[in-house]
Amino acid sequence: MTGGAPDRRTILISGGTVVNAEGFVRADVLIAGERIVGIGVDQGWQADEVIDATGKYIMPGGIDAHTHLEYPIDGFTTRTSDDFATGSVAAAFGGTTMFIDFVKKHPEQSLFETFADRRATAEQKSIIDFGLHAIVPPLAQQPDVHDDLRRLRAEQGASSWKFFMAYPGTQMVEDDELLAGMDLARELGALPMVHAENGHMINRAVQRLLDDGNTAEVFHAEAHGHASEAEAVHRAIVLAEEVGTPLYIVHVSSRLAAAEIASARSEGLEVWGETCPQYLLTAREDYEHLGEEAAGYICSPPIRERENQDDLWRYLCADGLSTLATDHAAFCMHQTEDLPPQKLRSPGYFPKTPNGVPGLEDRLMVVWEAGVASGRMDMCRFVEVTSARPAKLFGLYPQKGTVSVGADADLIVWDPAADHVITSEGSHSRTDYNLYEGMRVTGLPVTVLSRGRILIRDRELQPEARQTRGRYLERGPAQLY
Amino acid sequence: MTGGAPDRRTILISGGTVVNAEGFVRADVLIAGERIVGIGVDQGWQADEVIDATGKYIMPGGIDAHTHLEYPIDGFTTRTSDDFATGSVAAAFGGTTMFIDFVKKHPEQSLFETFADRRATAEQKSIIDFGLHAIVPPLAQQPDVHDDLRRLRAEQGASSWKFFMAYPGTQMVEDDELLAGMDLARELGALPMVHAENGHMINRAVQRLLDDGNTAEVFHAEAHGHASEAEAVHRAIVLAEEVGTPLYIVHVSSRLAAAEIASARSEGLEVWGETCPQYLLTAREDYEHLGEEAAGYICSPPIRERENQDDLWRYLCADGLSTLATDHAAFCMHQTEDLPPQKLRSPGYFPKTPNGVPGLEDRLMVVWEAGVASGRMDMCRFVEVTSARPAKLFGLYPQKGTVSVGADADLIVWDPAADHVITSEGSHSRTDYNLYEGMRVTGLPVTVLSRGRILIRDRELQPEARQTRGRYLERGPAQLY
Amino acid sequence: MTGGAPDRRTILISGGTVVNAEGFVRADVLIAGERIVGIGVDQGWQADEVIDATGKYIMPGGIDAHTHLEYPIDGFTTRTSDDFATGSVAAAFGGTTMFIDFVKKHPEQSLFETFADRRATAEQKSIIDFGLHAIVPPLAQQPDVHDDLRRLRAEQGASSWKFFMAYPGTQMVEDDELLAGMDLARELGALPMVHAENGHMINRAVQRLLDDGNTAEVFHAEAHGHASEAEAVHRAIVLAEEVGTPLYIVHVSSRLAAAEIASARSEGLEVWGETCPQYLLTAREDYEHLGEEAAGYICSPPIRERENQDDLWRYLCADGLSTLATDHAAFCMHQTEDLPPQKLRSPGYFPKTPNGVPGLEDRLMVVWEAGVASGRMDMCRFVEVTSARPAKLFGLYPQKGTVSVGADADLIVWDPAADHVITSEGSHSRTDYNLYEGMRVTGLPVTVLSRGRILIRDRELQPEARQTRGRYLERGPAQLY
Amino acid sequence: MTGGAPDRRTILISGGTVVNAEGFVRADVLIAGERIVGIGVDQGWQADEVIDATGKYIMPGGIDAHTHLEYPIDGFTTRTSDDFATGSVAAAFGGTTMFIDFVKKHPEQSLFETFADRRATAEQKSIIDFGLHAIVPPLAQQPDVHDDLRRLRAEQGASSWKFFMAYPGTQMVEDDELLAGMDLARELGALPMVHAENGHMINRAVQRLLDDGNTAEVFHAEAHGHASEAEAVHRAIVLAEEVGTPLYIVHVSSRLAAAEIASARSEGLEVWGETCPQYLLTAREDYEHLGEEAAGYICSPPIRERENQDDLWRYLCADGLSTLATDHAAFCMHQTEDLPPQKLRSPGYFPKTPNGVPGLEDRLMVVWEAGVASGRMDMCRFVEVTSARPAKLFGLYPQKGTVSVGADADLIVWDPAADHVITSEGSHSRTDYNLYEGMRVTGLPVTVLSRGRILIRDRELQPEARQTRGRYLERGPAQLY
Repeated sequence: MTGGAPDRRTILISGGTVVNAEGFVRADVLIAGERIVGIGVDQGWQADEVIDATGKYIMPGGIDAHTHLEYPIDGFTTRTSDDFATGSVAAAFGGTTMFIDFVKKHPEQSLFETFADRRATAEQKSIIDFGLHAIVPPLAQQPDVHDDLRRLRAEQGASSWKFFMAYPGTQMVEDDELLAGMDLARELGALPMVHAENGHMINRAVQRLLDDGNTAEVFHAEAHGHASEAEAVHRAIVLAEEVGTPLYIVHVSSRLAAAEIASARSEGLEVWGETCPQYLLTAREDYEHLGEEAAGYICSPPIRERENQDDLWRYLCADGLSTLATDHAAFCMHQTEDLPPQKLRSPGYFPKTPNGVPGLEDRLMVVWEAGVASGRMDMCRFVEVTSARPAKLFGLYPQKGTVSVGADADLIVWDPAADHVITSEGSHSRTDYNLYEGMRVTGLPVTVLSRGRILIRDRELQPEARQTRGRYLERGPAQLY
Repeated sequence: MTGGAPDRRTILISGGTVVNAEGFVRADVLIAGERIVGIGVDQGWQADEVIDATGKYIMPGGIDAHTHLEYPIDGFTTRTSDDFATGSVAAAFGGTTMFIDFVKKHPEQSLFETFADRRATAEQKSIIDFGLHAIVPPLAQQPDVHDDLRRLRAEQGASSWKFFMAYPGTQMVEDDELLAGMDLARELGALPMVHAENGHMINRAVQRLLDDGNTAEVFHAEAHGHASEAEAVHRAIVLAEEVGTPLYIVHVSSRLAAAEIASARSEGLEVWGETCPQYLLTAREDYEHLGEEAAGYICSPPIRERENQDDLWRYLCADGLSTLATDHAAFCMHQTEDLPPQKLRSPGYFPKTPNGVPGLEDRLMVVWEAGVASGRMDMCRFVEVTSARPAKLFGLYPQKGTVSVGADADLIVWDPAADHVITSEGSHSRTDYNLYEGMRVTGLPVTVLSRGRILIRDRELQPEARQTRGRYLERGPAQLY
Repeated sequence: MTGGAPDRRTILISGGTVVNAEGFVRADVLIAGERIVGIGVDQGWQADEVIDATGKYIMPGGIDAHTHLEYPIDGFTTRTSDDFATGSVAAAFGGTTMFIDFVKKHPEQSLFETFADRRATAEQKSIIDFGLHAIVPPLAQQPDVHDDLRRLRAEQGASSWKFFMAYPGTQMVEDDELLAGMDLARELGALPMVHAENGHMINRAVQRLLDDGNTAEVFHAEAHGHASEAEAVHRAIVLAEEVGTPLYIVHVSSRLAAAEIASARSEGLEVWGETCPQYLLTAREDYEHLGEEAAGYICSPPIRERENQDDLWRYLCADGLSTLATDHAAFCMHQTEDLPPQKLRSPGYFPKTPNGVPGLEDRLMVVWEAGVASGRMDMCRFVEVTSARPAKLFGLYPQKGTVSVGADADLIVWDPAADHVITSEGSHSRTDYNLYEGMRVTGLPVTVLSRGRILIRDRELQPEARQTRGRYLERGPAQLY
Repeated sequence: MTGGAPDRRTILISGGTVVNAEGFVRADVLIAGERIVGIGVDQGWQADEVIDATGKYIMPGGIDAHTHLEYPIDGFTTRTSDDFATGSVAAAFGGTTMFIDFVKKHPEQSLFETFADRRATAEQKSIIDFGLHAIVPPLAQQPDVHDDLRRLRAEQGASSWKFFMAYPGTQMVEDDELLAGMDLARELGALPMVHAENGHMINRAVQRLLDDGNTAEVFHAEAHGHASEAEAVHRAIVLAEEVGTPLYIVHVSSRLAAAEIASARSEGLEVWGETCPQYLLTAREDYEHLGEEAAGYICSPPIRERENQDDLWRYLCADGLSTLATDHAAFCMHQTEDLPPQKLRSPGYFPKTPNGVPGLEDRLMVVWEAGVASGRMDMCRFVEVTSARPAKLFGLYPQKGTVSVGADADLIVWDPAADHVITSEGSHSRTDYNLYEGMRVTGLPVTVLSRGRILIRDRELQPEARQTRGRYLERGPAQLY
């Protein structure tokens, strides 16, 4: 949309099928300004601009609730491969119109100060709307962090807080701090998120591997066993039930962990599990023969055995797992012009490989291909896990996550017949490799709107898109229905 | 909106909050003729008639997927207490705008013939739309019944078929016939439904009770143990998985049975469980001291212990159980003018008490009160279990089960502040007792529309309502998302 | 010890280690006549005969609680390959000093008459002690069979009765008859045994395979899926719990079925599972490439996938499965001098292949090799599953199943260092193939005693052994501890 | 042994029924010196002394694997109520002929030094044999404690080590230390034991109770919820499986915790659970109305609801729980001559009540009464859980835990017809109250032998008994069969 113009400029998306989490229907969508104002058939609507969606699906834009743009990890930052600018452009190309990133306390700032700075940085760069989760550090790092959490909830609408059960000595909190954090979250209406791996078990496993000389990249997965993930998930669920709070488990990778969540959910507990495309589409068998370049697949929890994938898909379809995010933390594999290598900074020694994989641009395409096009998943469920459910859980619904009258016009026009081969070269993230290199996908977001502004049209970034800026969204409590 | 086609009278429901299964939003609803044509805010809509819904909820009309009107059971029929006319009026008063009843093969007619006759009867009497499930008799009763099922699916849109795992010698099918029926259902896109109780276990239990002289009404519940229900549910799920068909379990009453379903669902099986208000709101403790009048609570599976209720609620909220129907099969307790007593035809001897309880009118009110008003269940889930999910499973969505543009204008305006004391006297079913006698409910359907026709307005049946006739709906395959 | 009574010949087994289910200890064993009269160290015992067991184990003789000698199956009998004479000799060579066979009602005799005849036949031929389980036919075959069961329990000590949940139309009983049989068993102190496969599911699967032209031997396993076995096990457990009787599940082959039993046991139900060497040591991968000769592996339930084995071993070690029997039902593969081929009577058409595999002689050796020698199982557990537990469950303990003072001197001297290659040629069963052909085993029963008579000495059948006769044992109720 | 005369003095226990874990049999038992040398019938044995056991059971003496005599807890010691002298006399009266106590590092001694001192103390006082478990303190208390553990295993035969998952700040170890301890135990063949309660959850719960003013004794049980116990059990099992070590869970009190163990065991994990009489026989309902004197029931984990008991019994009978110990830690309730009150030192304020209950003398009697006499448990299982299984797990079998030739003559003659009313007054522990006050038990140990010495004869302590001294036993690795 050029400059927003009159603030009620209208767009009509006609001839398509509106797909929401709860069903789909042939209908036109009328947008005025930033919002959807009409959904109907044969209404004779006129508009300033018309997008022909004949034969295509109109879906709510993807929401990636787990990204790390310009993010410091393991002594590096992901900035060189994806800052908020390039990352948000890549997101838009992939049909994602909102992301929620994380704020990790800067060593020399309070959590609140870090949050405010990071928000400002993103506001200056992102072309799409975004939110920020707060990461709760050990109290040893900031004894008054609960005060900051109160302020963040009240003043910044930061209604989701992440805790680490892994990484003892840096980010891990023991159960006492986790319980205290959950108590506060419950009091204030924030959603606790956990990185659920038992850090002590992992440390022991790493040490044993190193003692045996097993330092190659492929051993990263052995250090992060299924049991350490499943144990932490189990414990987090027990603690959340004790406190009486809903709980969100990020990046579930193990079928045993997923089974714990599915079982708790079937008993009525408000526990929600997120998984990621890399766990569904790539497997240990894809990288175990790659030698040092297996570094490109290193993330935590790890990418596991092929046979693990089927169960994750099954749980994702059956709502044992409920959301699909990327945990996008993109590092370059090789040396770049001005920087040393990241993924390969210490080849052959997995404990020093930066953890994280890219995926922000690819998420919807690869999951549509492997999920919807392959018949595993219906397209309503696709919308639910990629957009509607994260919108609800992170306090954004129905402003986001649905094609409904009154909702923000964050929309994608999805052409199920268009195809594309994924390559690093052809991607908009700056990272120099892609987990899905060479994968042919059928089904693409051809046109993408963010609050009524057309960012991508027929697979082309619109000239004005780079000038538009997304908004930081203050968020409310989780909606659990 | 520019007015609808000239032949379509318009109604505007303004000022309310639209509640769907997936969320709620403040919005007006515009109806033209039989359908919803607009949902929006501040649209400046005009209409022939305006219903003020300020402070109220606008929800899709209830769908009761399990009724037995004018139904022959145990040598009686339910006609005297509720035929299709009185039953449908009672339904409308309760906010239910569609029911799906059953067709049991008449001893002297084929299943197809019985179906056609029963459809015709209902078409002449019901004031709301309806559908019919086919009950599949043992092959011994009609060897070519599979031919009839094919015709019913093709010619009558009968896309749901019920099988009995109880009542050996009359309606029960052994596993071979159940498997064959499921195979056919899978082939034709029909949804198998089962009455899941192990009839052999029940027969044994009945005989032991009678041998011990335990013939009083209260022993009915002991004859139908938790284990016999849970076993049959387990077995039905195994058989459905073997065949590769979705499965619908009617009237789940035991927490053990519900646990079987919840567990299967958490593992990704397409099994759906229905429960009923009588299992959620009444308990053995309510009738065990009533002597012969405990007959009023006799249904199968039985109304169980109070402590069983919490688990059913829990599963219903967590989607282990997915729909809420009534199994309405209303008999009069006492002698009426022209008929002998029904429930009390053989006082003190439970095996001859007709099985069935009323509830068609009460369903939404009592479940709102005990579920939503009490804080157990959010109102989106209420809509899902009472309307949206049955619409999807029985091939009616999105024509029914949602307040969406394009959907039938089967709507209720629900006043969460209105209250009411339920009494048999004040009810519209002709049965002479009510399970919820004296219960105060807060939250009522004050205005009820069926395909754009106002049947009830401000709790008053509109004069023209008795003249309107609902339609029989041919139905498609189950939508499983 | 002052010497035994003068009429009792004494044997001293010296220098060995006595292994019982509950532990092992270095000790000598003194036998007088038919029984063990002393177990001790450094007692200075004298005896008429001394067996040096230095470096060897002294264990209770094996009890094979599931054999079919001279047995009619599928229109054939197993007589040609193993009658009671050859079968019992083979058993003794393998270290088995007692078997319990089955009595299936003869079409022209009552169950009681068949039982008496079969007992008499075995008494004339078997060189070791034996018992007989009664198979309960459908009531349609003998309406007064419950009278016979009462007489068999009272007059023949037949305290274990087998029911079939498979083979509809011939041996299968529906749940009503199974419940009635369990009720009678509970009343009389008999142990119900079930062949747990859902016959209806199998029939459907067979028909579908035949419809698709999949008639080759290998498809037998597909006809008998895991689910049909697990379902029947689950149901049998539910029924037994309803009745309040212990339950014994014969020949458990599926890990899913074993999991059902293990789960029930962990909750305190008295359910006991038996498995067989063929399920632990052979797998589908062993025969799927054999073409018609896969017939040699056909039994029901079937020999399953390799990956199924580990779970069976795990459950057997952890007491989810509790006994190890053979289901020995030996047919010749090829034509013999005077008889047509049995296993190959209708090559390429699995439904007509006789069901059953041999194993009576091999049982202890192959399970020691794959279990004890490989480190999966300790030798106390070996004794428990092969001897002590069957003795207890079938009412024989402590007369059988233990090396204890007062027990029958049914003993084996086991040399853990002796080795042997199993071949059909070198076996004593008359069948013309062996599932374990070519398997090297380390650990053999070198000397075998039956009630104080030395049948095998240093791997040689003693001359008088063929003249000795075992006794039929009347049995008491199951001992469940 | 005083009066033992020639060190092969013989005793014949004649006419009784020998009861072992694996079965029972009518037999005489011949003892020479310290050991059993013969078990037989009609052997014509002569002996220096004859004990007539006609009508009685001869069982292995009880082994109480969890006691705290002369033990410092919560700033007090249990010495005043039970030192090793009075405690061992009380044990003998109750039929317990061996106990295993604990060594908790003294603040000013190393663990090894504390162990040696405590052993010496007990050697000087105990009239029965005993062993000692080592308690592994947090490394912060003794950084080189692993060296001590190696020495204790090698030099003292201390083959069982206890870890606390509760009591943060004093005894609790986080998972890293627990893993390291388990690794060492696995290496050395020691059995890890855990006190399994999540100390962080308990601390939170205590704080919330105090914040709400809920300080009365009865709230102790609320502070120690089922979930905190079940979580710790689950986690301990995961960690032990990760390490590959067997695991022993002490004093399981919650059915949820027991279910975790039973489930793990059914899957083949070597996890063993211990429960205690107080959890089986007393319940919250027994003390919640006692006001301050509810202090007498305070122990951790707590004595729970009545309805919890049935599940514990069920698991104990079905081997989900495998041993029965007391956790005997006896404090006086009221002021004694020379000491202030212990249990009532801070009435009305549960956090300061010393934790622990008595039971060493009562264990066998109350569990026989409520278990065996009531029909819940057979007497073989009784022997298994009270003697044979602890003997095996703690490396004492078959020297202890069985009536077998070669075993120590630690025997009890149990009169199932004798009865007795339990009172504090009539007990031999010095504590001033008894949890089973007034309970009538039928079934008593009338005569008790320790290594061939008759300590109790016909319920009378023999004069020489007080002069006899038990031995400290070095123990080997756990026997898991």
